Amino acid sequence: MRPGYDADRPDSPRCARAYLLRVAEPPAPALAAFVAEHGPVAAAERVREQRVPEAVARETSARRELVLAAEDLAAAARAGARLIIPEDEEWPAWPLLCLEVATGRGVRDVATPLALWARGNATLDRVTDRAVAVVGARAATGYGEHTSAEFGYGLAERGMTVFSGAAYGVDGAAHRGALAGGGATVAVLGCALDAGYPAGHIGLCNRIAEHGLVLSEYPPGTPPARHRFLVRNRLIAALTAGSVVVEAGARSGARNTAATAGALGKVVMAVPGPVGSATSVGCHQLIRGGEATLVASVADVLDTVGSIGTDLRPEVDHPRRSTDGLGPQALRVHETLGTRKGKSPERIATESGVPVARVRAILPALELDGLSARCESGWRRAREAGRAP
Amino acid sequence: MRPGYDADRPDSPRCARAYLLRVAEPPAPALAAFVAEHGPVAAAERVREQRVPEAVARETSARRELVLAAEDLAAAARAGARLIIPEDEEWPAWPLLCLEVATGRGVRDVATPLALWARGNATLDRVTDRAVAVVGARAATGYGEHTSAEFGYGLAERGMTVFSGAAYGVDGAAHRGALAGGGATVAVLGCALDAGYPAGHIGLCNRIAEHGLVLSEYPPGTPPARHRFLVRNRLIAALTAGSVVVEAGARSGARNTAATAGALGKVVMAVPGPVGSATSVGCHQLIRGGEATLVASVADVLDTVGSIGTDLRPEVDHPRRSTDGLGPQALRVHETLGTRKGKSPERIATESGVPVARVRAILPALELDGLSARCESGWRRAREAGRAP
Repeated sequence: MRPGYDADRPDSPRCARAYLLRVAEPPAPALAAFVAEHGPVAAAERVREQRVPEAVARETSARRELVLAAEDLAAAARAGARLIIPEDEEWPAWPLLCLEVATGRGVRDVATPLALWARGNATLDRVTDRAVAVVGARAATGYGEHTSAEFGYGLAERGMTVFSGAAYGVDGAAHRGALAGGGATVAVLGCALDAGYPAGHIGLCNRIAEHGLVLSEYPPGTPPARHRFLVRNRLIAALTAGSVVVEAGARSGARNTAATAGALGKVVMAVPGPVGSATSVGCHQLIRGGEATLVASVADVLDTVGSIGTDLRPEVDHPRRSTDGLGPQALRVHETLGTRKGKSPERIATESGVPVARVRAILPALELDGLSARCESGWRRAREAGRAP
Repeated sequence: MRPGYDADRPDSPRCARAYLLRVAEPPAPALAAFVAEHGPVAAAERVREQRVPEAVARETSARRELVLAAEDLAAAARAGARLIIPEDEEWPAWPLLCLEVATGRGVRDVATPLALWARGNATLDRVTDRAVAVVGARAATGYGEHTSAEFGYGLAERGMTVFSGAAYGVDGAAHRGALAGGGATVAVLGCALDAGYPAGHIGLCNRIAEHGLVLSEYPPGTPPARHRFLVRNRLIAALTAGSVVVEAGARSGARNTAATAGALGKVVMAVPGPVGSATSVGCHQLIRGGEATLVASVADVLDTVGSIGTDLRPEVDHPRRSTDGLGPQALRVHETLGTRKGKSPERIATESGVPVARVRAILPALELDGLSARCESGWRRAREAGRAP
């Protein structure tokens, strides 16, 4: 279904879910279970009428009288946004399943969202197909912003959607890098789409919407709040194959990101930095504690998430030395050779400790490999012309 | 015994070992076993007379006529050096035992040294008591040299002896840092004590000798060579609780250092750096591949060698000889390991369903039990052969 399709029918699933998003502060696990059991329309009706189990009441009683679904859907439509609901084809049911599974296992605060407000030209199930999150410190260093932009660019170039949180610092640089790389990028907010936060990124969010999506669970007008960023993190983790933490201080959201992603069975990656840098402390802690895998390049990221997804990293071409194929005795003989003056096999044997009979056999073999040369006074090292491929 | 004590007696163990060090290029596993069986004096006599098994002959025939023990000991004495032999009280028998154990397990090129040329005021068994190696690239960046010096200083200040290789770059900075921190530091060379290599570090080596030791297996006059640095690395690994790699390029000795230390059951640590830095690539690869633990501070190093390092001393009689004693997670990890190709901890985690942090802890434990082995591509199952009853 396309945006607004059933927005005018007050008994539609879309209106019901818009109402429930307004009423319950995410995550609302009891309400999510209640909706799954009764369907959104009946669940919304019973919430309005307060005919709900106590756990659901605790999540909905504070705002149940805010019957603003029509207004919220109209405001969203005016701002070019839509409400994506589980009944829509583009709902990313499979990526979000991990939230349900984790909640069932007793993980707290990772309830499935009831619906998602969205602004942008991309289709949600498409952009979650090959997605990686790039997140990190707002107070990033130049190194952090540069690295984040490089990762965003490289991932976009390789067809990955870059998810982040549209914050200053690492997040913004990741989105910008992805846009520069010509890829889709998705911002998941900890406030309403129309909250205009952060103020300096309104233009960035407009550009993101042109090439991707801006997402939020929060109804129009909801301001940002610290707990909302943490709650939002579960969506970024769920909708991606893994999260890359680019810079993070010792006390930062990075640990929350890692814990959430870990609980959802997603890969956590962290980018190292100089050991003196306060904004790399969190990354180093995650790696050292085994909570995150070190990634130093886009290839590392693809390799890490690829072991779960479909990407295969191309074999790295290690630069080869011409002496790479030599055995230990041949190496010792080669080491002993001078570059100018020749040496007799006997002298080479004495200096290398390799028996002279072996030396006599090794020297012509080295010559065939272009590594030794005969001269008037014996044998010397050949010029490094013959580099192996 | 003190330096020169029995140097004048041609049938003394010291003269015998000085002769054997001159004759055989280390590592000489057959000769080491031959000496262990017959004692140094009888072994030296039989080498001179060529009455030795073929394997020993291969290691000694090229130089067996160089009967220079008295000359070498005299030259050393003139230079203020001594030959430390296993018959001396200061011989670090316990730290070096891991070389014998590893050789017995089939690890190549880690034979026990026959003796060690030493210059300096420290006592060898004392300086190996609480020792950490700090090693890395010769072509270090300012960041690498600074970090190395900081680590050397901090470790020395906390009473650790800093081992390194006296090379330019990271090694030199580590020694200088340790000296500045008022601690003992030990340089292990890949050439003779009198080779004057590297030329710019002659003064540094003199200062090291005042506060620690300069060590070498190589008899007077032996020039440096690439294979000698690799062979030397086993001594640095054996004589320390763990090795810190500060900077290392993609193709560097770091992999050798890590492989050697790993084979000897020692902890390998690596310092991260900016992801764009070519001299941090090797460190990041080691951490990412699970071959090294990330250390971002001296506290991290002490934590790592303190909790794992001392426990990792090889045990000759280990009680666990099969998978019988393993817990359920360790069993699942072991089941996942292949017998030939290595797998990354991440892949093992994915395949076994055991969290990657647990996998990282389990793999070294399995290694101690002789059930897993490190290889270039990660971890594989250890061969069941060679298990003593």
